[in-house]
Amino acid sequence: MTIARTICLGFVAVITVGTLLLILPFSTVDGHWNNPIIALFTSTSAVCVTGLTVVDTGTYFSFWGQLIITLLIQVGGLGYMTTTTFLMLLIGRRFDLRQKLAIQDSFDRPFRQVSSRMMISSIISMTLLFEITGVIFLFIFFKDRYELPYSLWLSIFHSVSAWNNAGFGLFKDNLMSVQGSLIINFTITILIIFGGLGYQAILEIYMWIIHKIKNKQERVVLSLNFKVVTSTTLFLLIFGTVIFLLVEYNNPETLASMSLKDKLLGAWFQSVTTRTAGFNTIDNGKMTIAGLLLTMGLMFIGASPSGTGGGIKTTTVRILSNCTRSVLRGNDQVILYQREVPVPLILKAVSVVFGSTILVISISFFISFIEVSINPDVFEVSFNSLQVLFEVISAFGTVGLSTGITASLSPISQILLVLTMYTGRVGVLLLMAAIVGDARPRVVQYPEESLLVG
Amino acid sequence: MTIARTICLGFVAVITVGTLLLILPFSTVDGHWNNPIIALFTSTSAVCVTGLTVVDTGTYFSFWGQLIITLLIQVGGLGYMTTTTFLMLLIGRRFDLRQKLAIQDSFDRPFRQVSSRMMISSIISMTLLFEITGVIFLFIFFKDRYELPYSLWLSIFHSVSAWNNAGFGLFKDNLMSVQGSLIINFTITILIIFGGLGYQAILEIYMWIIHKIKNKQERVVLSLNFKVVTSTTLFLLIFGTVIFLLVEYNNPETLASMSLKDKLLGAWFQSVTTRTAGFNTIDNGKMTIAGLLLTMGLMFIGASPSGTGGGIKTTTVRILSNCTRSVLRGNDQVILYQREVPVPLILKAVSVVFGSTILVISISFFISFIEVSINPDVFEVSFNSLQVLFEVISAFGTVGLSTGITASLSPISQILLVLTMYTGRVGVLLLMAAIVGDARPRVVQYPEESLLVG
Ligand SMILES: [K+]
Ligand SMILES: [K+]
Repeated sequence: MTIARTICLGFVAVITVGTLLLILPFSTVDGHWNNPIIALFTSTSAVCVTGLTVVDTGTYFSFWGQLIITLLIQVGGLGYMTTTTFLMLLIGRRFDLRQKLAIQDSFDRPFRQVSSRMMISSIISMTLLFEITGVIFLFIFFKDRYELPYSLWLSIFHSVSAWNNAGFGLFKDNLMSVQGSLIINFTITILIIFGGLGYQAILEIYMWIIHKIKNKQERVVLSLNFKVVTSTTLFLLIFGTVIFLLVEYNNPETLASMSLKDKLLGAWFQSVTTRTAGFNTIDNGKMTIAGLLLTMGLMFIGASPSGTGGGIKTTTVRILSNCTRSVLRGNDQVILYQREVPVPLILKAVSVVFGSTILVISISFFISFIEVSINPDVFEVSFNSLQVLFEVISAFGTVGLSTGITASLSPISQILLVLTMYTGRVGVLLLMAAIVGDARPRVVQYPEESLLVG
Repeated sequence: MTIARTICLGFVAVITVGTLLLILPFSTVDGHWNNPIIALFTSTSAVCVTGLTVVDTGTYFSFWGQLIITLLIQVGGLGYMTTTTFLMLLIGRRFDLRQKLAIQDSFDRPFRQVSSRMMISSIISMTLLFEITGVIFLFIFFKDRYELPYSLWLSIFHSVSAWNNAGFGLFKDNLMSVQGSLIINFTITILIIFGGLGYQAILEIYMWIIHKIKNKQERVVLSLNFKVVTSTTLFLLIFGTVIFLLVEYNNPETLASMSLKDKLLGAWFQSVTTRTAGFNTIDNGKMTIAGLLLTMGLMFIGASPSGTGGGIKTTTVRILSNCTRSVLRGNDQVILYQREVPVPLILKAVSVVFGSTILVISISFFISFIEVSINPDVFEVSFNSLQVLFEVISAFGTVGLSTGITASLSPISQILLVLTMYTGRVGVLLLMAAIVGDARPRVVQYPEESLLVG
């Protein structure tokens, strides 16, 4: 079996187990057998760390149901982070000398002696370290507001959900009721950002800090992946905050009624969460159209590879934008931080964007078509057409933000969203590779011929 | 001055002259000085062969105004076709041996002896040939329905508008009132398709037919450009017809009430017109959401390079889709009809799509933001948010289809649409190149380094 197939089937297996567990009566508050579509949707959403829901997690699922969801999120997030890290190792080229040195340093032994087991325990330790720190800070906030066992459970659930960029919440309005809290805003956004950066980038930050503390003379050489990922992430975070603040400033349904501090927190939180986490402190269904368009753009871009987030990834966007710069400058190569981006990688980036776009548009198209066919009147009146595109991009980017229509869609549309979440998680290319099977590289050489484009 | 700047300024010059002429009192029916925004919008729309309008062309403009619009369309369309053909010649590589042979054959002299003047007269002759044929067929339809001078004028105006893919019409409802006519449907769609294919492709079809008639034994070797352009166009036309028929079949506002023949004609016409012409026989504002999404996708793709149409072009899409195929097959090269696509061309295709996407999203974002800021209540209620995206894509692709909101937008949004039409016409890359100035290719070599994408 190819690696692609193993990964794709692995996710299917975990989703199936999750679905079966969530169908069982002890998972729901009312204690009846659960609707299979609800169980499938919730399990997929948890394993793919999406966070779209068709029922209210906090009131529909029992403690056991919520615990299963937490475990599914943890397995899904950790599984993805581990898999991508190993894929980088397997493909070999991906860890270059500097990254190998970083790993060597952090394990304090030669790279070749770093076993898979050590790597996995290192990833798990990092996850636990961040999650436990998150639980502590969240508990400081929740302990005065709720009874003891429940406040601890709230802290654990939201910390796991935030680190894994899952976006599941136990409150009916997600995090809107705690919008003004500094501790909530910063704990959650820091967990989201670091979870979204991923193992490799955090390792490099760690090594960089160690170097600074030990005051070593040698300069730390950071990997290209690290530079691209952190600079693009930083740019998008600041860009998003500024634009959200601008377009929602006077919207009475979102930021207008808040104090300046809360406005800033709200815009910052929205900018962070949109990039793949899916928590919300303001109501996405009531945002301005400009705000919705920005959200859709950021959701489609998503997080960084090897983190817990989704989307087409920051690196992909960076390659394409530098491609444009190269063309304008009359260069034939794409350059990032004085490194040439190999042609196969450019082709891969193009394929990711092309495949993702086709997927998102086709699914939106099918859902629109299905919903109109089932009930033309209700659909035209109650749904804004941009909302369908919004939900599909949210599902594809494993973001989980919602304008509120997912629960009212027909079961067949919900199953289309399940497929979108799954494809968004494993990746369009990986899924297609799993279906196509082993690639047989072409050996024939063809002559070049030019074309007019654009 | 660079070629890019010459082209960009050439369009600006023609648009300016057109605007000034359309401001003059004799241009309008009421005989007063025209509103400058209306004149600018109409002139840009005509020169860029877009067809978006803020007033009803048939009742707002006098005969002289309509004549000016016709001439602007003719100059704009011919100018574009001539420019792109010459760009191909200038860049040199673009006309390969086979195309040179075709030109040689059609002019009956060696390629080097084919002068610019002969080429231009050849393009003009082709244009007149098609337009006059169009006028004759349209006149057959119109002569029994309208008085003589007016029916002739209707035929001329619509023939020029169709060949240049302009989409301007003299009826209030564009061509909706003549939806059932076979002669209108076929004359208009054939003019649109051939105008959209462009000089070079028509020349190759002509040579191919000549060869077949003369029954020459030698096989006609068609250029890569021709194969890609015709096969992609054919695929999109059939695909569009089938899907439009499917999604609009039961829509009472569009196809549902029509006979099967009219349904087929309507779907076919919509499929052809969407790709850049902008005429309509059904009301786009009343299409289903699925229909709107399909329309937006096809409008963004647009026509073929060197024709009169706009969009990111069929060749660009084909390169990107074959790029995806190559990646899935594990190849490092993009192949089209047994020809390797050069890497710089792939980079150019990526830049076109990237630049165009950023442009369309930014403009939609600004228009949404501006309209909401000016009048939140009216906007939220009367405009569907997908409609803004629809108008912007229509302007960018120089299509001219409208859901009907353009006339009610604020002047500043209309000016943004003017800029979009202009950019969509000269092309994102060409405009950026004109602004950036001469490209200075990089000479430094950088080492390669890989990244994770998708
Ligand atoms: K999420
Ligand atoms: K047009």
